[in-house]
Amino acid sequence: MSGGVVIAGLGPGTEALITPEVSSALDWATDIVGYIPYVRRVTPRAGLTLHESDNRVELDRSRHALEMASEGRRVVVVSSGDPGVFAMASAVFEAVEAGPEAWRALDIRVLPGITAMLAAAARAGAPLGHDFCAINLSDNLKPWALIEKRLRLAAQADFAMAFYNPRSKSRPEGFGRALRLLQEECGDARPILFARAVSTPEERITCVPLTEATEDMADMRTVVILGNSATRIIPRPEGQFVYTPRSVPE
Amino acid sequence: MSGGVVIAGLGPGTEALITPEVSSALDWATDIVGYIPYVRRVTPRAGLTLHESDNRVELDRSRHALEMASEGRRVVVVSSGDPGVFAMASAVFEAVEAGPEAWRALDIRVLPGITAMLAAAARAGAPLGHDFCAINLSDNLKPWALIEKRLRLAAQADFAMAFYNPRSKSRPEGFGRALRLLQEECGDARPILFARAVSTPEERITCVPLTEATEDMADMRTVVILGNSATRIIPRPEGQFVYTPRSVPE
Repeated sequence: MSGGVVIAGLGPGTEALITPEVSSALDWATDIVGYIPYVRRVTPRAGLTLHESDNRVELDRSRHALEMASEGRRVVVVSSGDPGVFAMASAVFEAVEAGPEAWRALDIRVLPGITAMLAAAARAGAPLGHDFCAINLSDNLKPWALIEKRLRLAAQADFAMAFYNPRSKSRPEGFGRALRLLQEECGDARPILFARAVSTPEERITCVPLTEATEDMADMRTVVILGNSATRIIPRPEGQFVYTPRSVPE
Repeated sequence: MSGGVVIAGLGPGTEALITPEVSSALDWATDIVGYIPYVRRVTPRAGLTLHESDNRVELDRSRHALEMASEGRRVVVVSSGDPGVFAMASAVFEAVEAGPEAWRALDIRVLPGITAMLAAAARAGAPLGHDFCAINLSDNLKPWALIEKRLRLAAQADFAMAFYNPRSKSRPEGFGRALRLLQEECGDARPILFARAVSTPEERITCVPLTEATEDMADMRTVVILGNSATRIIPRPEGQFVYTPRSVPE
């Protein structure tokens, strides 16, 4: 069997959300490459080498995967969620484009996974049931001004919004600024959801009116979902459902 | 075991993309409810009743599911892709909100699935690897003017875009108008992908420059993905990769 690189999404946490396609790829692999906590989700076995690396070395990790595949190894690059949503797939293709011509002939496949916003939305009800956008709030790889521009335009478009990477130790300020901008642009008390570690034992989902949201409600393990102007709450005996209607009246 | 409603996503087509969580729900069910082609993806077995219904009766179907659950049946409402993305979850919650108070006490859960845009993106490379939006191009439930407004704002925000329901027999004109608007707003030849019936034997993926896109490239089984201004193509010996870089320079 010849080598290759599979970029696979492990979903948000539980094994019950890993697709059979991804499970097969993990069985096929000789090498697993990824950020430490994601590699640790893969069960060790004889014949499988686990290569853990730290955050922020996505290009190095990609090159390592591609080099091993060139030597005939069967490499699976693991991402949390879906590898194509703010995860490893783009990094691998950046490395391919900048790398030796021979890498373009490698067998490279992306296997989708359940991305955090959709797992979180399902837990809460259906807050992304109408048009929506997904924005990475980290300004490590893009200017903060572009994030603000996108938030303003998304509010004007009345998209529901999902925010990845809202806040980290190295970026403590941005999320508060984003919240204040959204409070001003949206001008209402639509629901905002903070979904932390969905589908893991540490899962915690909080829903508050946008007017009461504060930056300490999110951390790096949180995905945030802001409703659109029509998003509704259905109170129920235990908890509530949050959903966005399919229709917008004429 | 008491009844309930599970709204489950079957993914885009292949069984390899159905999560174990959804497979368990199908085993648990006494009744399957859904649009004809999706119900037909469920393997019949003793003790399982299949209730097929036509398109555009989402609220009737939802009420039927909730009524059966009230009688203690274990009902799974099946959607293609993810039930929270332009699918059945919002319809069920609309029915809950408008229905008898007792429905709010039912056990209702949403199980996420692999939505079409992420399956399509994975096949092509990583076109949604940076900020993006998802827009339903059907104007059955919202005014066309709102779709146009969202397309313009999304282009100004430089989002990659995924379009669901681009075209149907009853709406032959809209997609052409959307394409002309995007050609004007984007003003470049960025890649646009037409991904039909992803992960099924009829899968067909076409990528052309936006300037050359025509409305006959899509039908109701197609999800369309438009890159952002930085989306790149990597030519390779067989086919190509399409990806959107993670970074935007200052």
